[in-house]
Amino acid sequence: MKIGLSEKSILECLDNYFPHQDEHTLLGRGDDCSLLSLDTQHYNILVTTDIFTENSHFRRDYFSPEAIGYKSLAVNISDIYAMGGNPFSAQLALSLPQDIEKSFLESLFSSMASLAKEHNIILSGGDLTKSENLSLTITLLGKVDKDVRLYRNQAKCGDIVFLVGDIGLSRLALKILEKESKQEKEGYPQAVNRHLFPQMHKESALQIHDFAKKYKEEKFSLMDVSDGLAQDLPRLVEKYGIDLCLEEKDLYTEIVNFCKNEKLNPIDFAIQGGEDYALLGTCPSSLWEEFSLFCPKAKKIGFVKEEKGIYCFGEERNLQGYDHFTQ
Amino acid sequence: MKIGLSEKSILECLDNYFPHQDEHTLLGRGDDCSLLSLDTQHYNILVTTDIFTENSHFRRDYFSPEAIGYKSLAVNISDIYAMGGNPFSAQLALSLPQDIEKSFLESLFSSMASLAKEHNIILSGGDLTKSENLSLTITLLGKVDKDVRLYRNQAKCGDIVFLVGDIGLSRLALKILEKESKQEKEGYPQAVNRHLFPQMHKESALQIHDFAKKYKEEKFSLMDVSDGLAQDLPRLVEKYGIDLCLEEKDLYTEIVNFCKNEKLNPIDFAIQGGEDYALLGTCPSSLWEEFSLFCPKAKKIGFVKEEKGIYCFGEERNLQGYDHFTQ
Repeated sequence: MKIGLSEKSILECLDNYFPHQDEHTLLGRGDDCSLLSLDTQHYNILVTTDIFTENSHFRRDYFSPEAIGYKSLAVNISDIYAMGGNPFSAQLALSLPQDIEKSFLESLFSSMASLAKEHNIILSGGDLTKSENLSLTITLLGKVDKDVRLYRNQAKCGDIVFLVGDIGLSRLALKILEKESKQEKEGYPQAVNRHLFPQMHKESALQIHDFAKKYKEEKFSLMDVSDGLAQDLPRLVEKYGIDLCLEEKDLYTEIVNFCKNEKLNPIDFAIQGGEDYALLGTCPSSLWEEFSLFCPKAKKIGFVKEEKGIYCFGEERNLQGYDHFTQ
Repeated sequence: MKIGLSEKSILECLDNYFPHQDEHTLLGRGDDCSLLSLDTQHYNILVTTDIFTENSHFRRDYFSPEAIGYKSLAVNISDIYAMGGNPFSAQLALSLPQDIEKSFLESLFSSMASLAKEHNIILSGGDLTKSENLSLTITLLGKVDKDVRLYRNQAKCGDIVFLVGDIGLSRLALKILEKESKQEKEGYPQAVNRHLFPQMHKESALQIHDFAKKYKEEKFSLMDVSDGLAQDLPRLVEKYGIDLCLEEKDLYTEIVNFCKNEKLNPIDFAIQGGEDYALLGTCPSSLWEEFSLFCPKAKKIGFVKEEKGIYCFGEERNLQGYDHFTQ
């Protein structure tokens, strides 16, 4: 298989030509969302874009139209919550192959509209074209309090690393679904459901927002895990490393069983997950006790350490995360 | 060729599931941009999305990477100016086939970045995926004065219809370029250039904005012509019709010559153009004299009349415009 340009080389090429910031752009490329300012009083604007395209992100033989409509919007909602914001307006760019039937489209729109309603999002515009593959690109706008900064690269040594949601289930499902064996799919119901309908963590995101607002002199960080902990942890803490305290009992049984059969290390498997859409963040250790009461779904999974790299109970792990572009 | 669902039926299906407005959404789907409000003082937010995809909107055999980079952004800029706004932030969703080389990408980014800089746009984010066809979906954000309303469907009987820019050239180029005869391409340099690098009408858009602000009690309308006058005029005036005063001398010689060879009516040909990216608007007739001094590139092309339909010097024309989706 011809691999083409790597994601890294494409982004470097982009950086050579496009500047990052101006007076409107508080955070440009590289976080979950862009953060833009206008002449607002209390809020800044969040913007995020995700492509969801057939044969790269999903296949129509195991994604129902309901799952396509749901997941294409959900992955964007996750980015807004990962900045502590609230989504409000979506643009849908829809590329449709000519074999799509009206009933398919109705199921897709109905499912997307339910999710939009649940999260107070209006579909304000978009574009439509014919194409060979079904593809949905959604740009979602959100708003966030000016004094809440839940960005990446805010952590310091000793901070607690926390997770809201699970890791590894979605990657497990992808492996199972790509095998196309009906029997196997039925053996991993939780994984398959998580892959098709990723959970949103609105309540926890708002709790983290409120806590960060209460302690606005302190530094917190937050992101959503879309490429697996192995890739996303270094993006979260950039200058530092992380020592994880993850054990088999923290993982879903489906993952442990699968890894037993395949003779894989379940922790390493889960860390290399992708499309988890869990919330990953850091909190100063002095505030952890109060924080964990404030946001009860946040689980401590490790702490920030001086040495770069990903460790588990002190032992370094050399792992790669998921890369949509070259996989 | 299988036609699939029509654009109209897809949009109707969308309307069945997605509501149009809420407290943030002043204008939803159906104008050049969505118009959103936040807790701003002077501005509202404009958002527009355009898909620019290989084999639907361009072919790589006659679009250089520079033209692809330019036009994919230009069509969005045009939408922001057509609302009287100023663009400031873009999101790029890039779907790349694996045969794209680095030098191609550099030329594309370089050209897009020049246009972005000229119009004060920062590329604040986006997404990247592999795909079979090259596709660029850009969502552009702009800002517009709260008290300027250059929307569609604001015209009344007797208003002057004006145009900034030209019609028909881009359609002519498409016909020539699709023929793949090098000799013919060279015979229509202005048309080909207009199709590959559509002109932006920033200066005129700002003049129209300032005039509409000066006379804020009066109603003006404005849109960009992307599907040809035959389709876009009825969208501009909705309840009314339009009597055009267009003559052969108003058209480019390249159009007149082509139509002579092909035994076509050049006015009808130009009215059915597509991808003109001209600004089309209405102005109360009592203000026209002052308006035309204020915005010297605005040409009077007709007036709004009671009877629905498109007329030319009183004679009704039954014409169809360009439809990206089914053509």
